[in-house]
Amino acid sequence: MTGTPDPAPRPVRWAGEGLWITFEGGDGVGKSTQVALLDEWLRERGRTVVHTREPGGTPVGTLIREIVLHHRGHIAPRAEALLYAADRAHHVAELVVPSLERGEVVLQDRYLDSSVAYQGAGRVLDADEVRGISMWAAGGLLPNLTILLDLDPSVARQRLDGDDKPFDRLESEQEEFHVRVREAFLELAAAEPDRFFVLDAALPADVIAQRIRARVEGELGSRS
Amino acid sequence: MTGTPDPAPRPVRWAGEGLWITFEGGDGVGKSTQVALLDEWLRERGRTVVHTREPGGTPVGTLIREIVLHHRGHIAPRAEALLYAADRAHHVAELVVPSLERGEVVLQDRYLDSSVAYQGAGRVLDADEVRGISMWAAGGLLPNLTILLDLDPSVARQRLDGDDKPFDRLESEQEEFHVRVREAFLELAAAEPDRFFVLDAALPADVIAQRIRARVEGELGSRS
Repeated sequence: MTGTPDPAPRPVRWAGEGLWITFEGGDGVGKSTQVALLDEWLRERGRTVVHTREPGGTPVGTLIREIVLHHRGHIAPRAEALLYAADRAHHVAELVVPSLERGEVVLQDRYLDSSVAYQGAGRVLDADEVRGISMWAAGGLLPNLTILLDLDPSVARQRLDGDDKPFDRLESEQEEFHVRVREAFLELAAAEPDRFFVLDAALPADVIAQRIRARVEGELGSRS
Repeated sequence: MTGTPDPAPRPVRWAGEGLWITFEGGDGVGKSTQVALLDEWLRERGRTVVHTREPGGTPVGTLIREIVLHHRGHIAPRAEALLYAADRAHHVAELVVPSLERGEVVLQDRYLDSSVAYQGAGRVLDADEVRGISMWAAGGLLPNLTILLDLDPSVARQRLDGDDKPFDRLESEQEEFHVRVREAFLELAAAEPDRFFVLDAALPADVIAQRIRARVEGELGSRS
């Protein structure tokens, strides 16, 4: 062995054709709703939109998603992080970049910020190491814009469950985990204010959608 | 983003209970035969032997192996490297280390040297980067002994095909690739002479087996 190489490339924002927007935030914050609303609005304006997600946005990714989300039994933490990274590498190289090169708009539900926030909050693996692996997977490519839907996890949970019964012990532990995930997302956003657009996900969906459209209109205008 | 982290841990040889031996070399050099012969010899001496392989030595690994070896369609090079690394991370954490901790002998067909040699020979990805990802996957753990079965690829090919017809163009390109794989393995062995035991795989199988047993006997003696 000849020392310890540094496989992580320098992060670089996508600067070619098209527009690449990722959506981040915990479960239940309304990402799917906002992706769908923005998708519709962009199509009405004549844009070609690719609506995708990680994990699972490609045929290979669907197989990987099956393993990470539905395998019965423990998966070693590093293996899980590497499976997410493998899905990401294939997705970026085979779907995202070719779509952008055709001038299309890519709307993506979750990207590497999710890996960093969830792994950091889980406290099993080092978040910087996970980011290094993810960055290598993605060849260092970052989206033009990342929309972070920020919400108190207890509110998000009520949305998901459709009830408001009190937490039991296990749920309280999960609650603390989701509080750490939220904090991790906000820290990532604070570190890259140019890339992130943070929205209060407690606002009505149509208000959030309007703010996103205004921001995206600015991005499209500055690039045409 | 806060710079580019270095996720690769320092390599460290296994120093706990048990004995961990990996077998490396191109296809057709006789790894399976030698693993089986050593397995039999060790069992006759009362050792508990775990005979395993990468990719695919665990249930999760079997699913990953299906993707990397049998998916119909292109897999992005970084995704492929990360899938091998994910298999490795799970295999080392869930099978190899627990077996060693029980004092067992692990005989493993292929490990990270294969990733480095094949990726380096393929010239698509940087071999040092692939090694960094693999080392992160493995938590830096290296086996006690790596047996490299070295053979001229044209001889290995005749063994696999059972014939000696001349190469066509595509096969000649493959031949050059396998020559580079062989060179890469020999370079890895030269860089770590303590870990590697290089054998001329053109020798009769029983002669090779005898030399491996002598070396393994030494390893077992020095550890008991």
